[in-house]
Amino acid sequence: QIRDDVVSLLADGPLRGVKAVVTAGPTREPLDPVRFLTNRSSGKQGYAVAAALRDRGAQVTLISGPTTLPTPPGVTRVDVETAADMLQASMQACADAQLFVAAAAVADYRAAAIADSKIKKHNAELTLALARTDDVLATVRQAYPALFVVGFAAETDDLETHARGKLQRKGLDLIAANWVGQGRAFDQDDNSLQLFWDGGQHAIGHASKAAVAAELADVIVARRAKKL
Amino acid sequence: QIRDDVVSLLADGPLRGVKAVVTAGPTREPLDPVRFLTNRSSGKQGYAVAAALRDRGAQVTLISGPTTLPTPPGVTRVDVETAADMLQASMQACADAQLFVAAAAVADYRAAAIADSKIKKHNAELTLALARTDDVLATVRQAYPALFVVGFAAETDDLETHARGKLQRKGLDLIAANWVGQGRAFDQDDNSLQLFWDGGQHAIGHASKAAVAAELADVIVARRAKKL
Repeated sequence: QIRDDVVSLLADGPLRGVKAVVTAGPTREPLDPVRFLTNRSSGKQGYAVAAALRDRGAQVTLISGPTTLPTPPGVTRVDVETAADMLQASMQACADAQLFVAAAAVADYRAAAIADSKIKKHNAELTLALARTDDVLATVRQAYPALFVVGFAAETDDLETHARGKLQRKGLDLIAANWVGQGRAFDQDDNSLQLFWDGGQHAIGHASKAAVAAELADVIVARRAKKL
Repeated sequence: QIRDDVVSLLADGPLRGVKAVVTAGPTREPLDPVRFLTNRSSGKQGYAVAAALRDRGAQVTLISGPTTLPTPPGVTRVDVETAADMLQASMQACADAQLFVAAAAVADYRAAAIADSKIKKHNAELTLALARTDDVLATVRQAYPALFVVGFAAETDDLETHARGKLQRKGLDLIAANWVGQGRAFDQDDNSLQLFWDGGQHAIGHASKAAVAAELADVIVARRAKKL
């Protein structure tokens, strides 16, 4: 850890002077005081991206849903629970940032109403009314047009189609897509990513999440240089 | 840990020769390959109960939902994910057991159908069809009438009424009730319990989950002696 701190302090990389905001982990959307809806994101890939950007000289704020991971040294961490919390924290942190990497698996749906007391199990069936959460990526993108914005897409099918659709629809600069389900990516130590941008793509082969994050950070540096 | 192992091997307590099954932690009910419904149980109280029963000489099998806790030394652990998994593992483990303590926060509802691929967020609102999970406590109780069965009730209101209702309805020998929500019990290191049985009750004051588990184990030993 001391070594990491020193690396961070000495970092004179291509992102020196850049303020970067990274989101990571799942969100939890409460149904009542004890139950919630969530997903299998461990936060590992996002934490590794935060460390990789720090290693390239960026000043990094990591906005994290509930995980069991230690904070990367030299990174400022903000803990959140719900998608609404994550949006608020992201909007605040991005106000003076130049780079936003949204690696969190933010819930798309929350309970339409949160019950004050524990829902009793009187019925054999129950329909749960869900409402869309506010879109963190799209909201941040619209609020800060000059920000370099990187999104993630976790897909179980039609990877490139879904990822390029999201890239265009949300006006992202870069999207990192990966396959999930059947034990892939989520909660694993290894990952692989397909990067897409307007007019190009780059494949990051199966490797540790730290190695994948390092390669992603290098592509971000290169793509950002083209845009500047 | 070596000390714990020795204590376990030497244990010559009131539960010597007794096979005990303890469930702990939350369950996860998948909606699709990445999303799931769960609850705030950390598993700490159940793990502490497993250790307390071991300390009193029992041979303990701990059936655990997803937690980040280490297995108590000398305890056999079986990992499960869903309520259906927990029922199957409990039925199997209880076949030759004398004591069953169901401390897990088993999901009451699961998705009526699990989507094969990730649910896309096309709609602003979504209704999720849920179906009741099979009742682990009631099923085990009916299958093994001679088993001493201890249930838990986590309530946000009307503690005694809800707990005694569950005690009667499921034919339990003892029920341990606690308040949850607003940061109480779930994911905390301390707890307090109200124990109820047919014709009696006992309050365990606020203490560490290990101390609460020790007192609960002593009441189980005493109540079981009355029944034998």
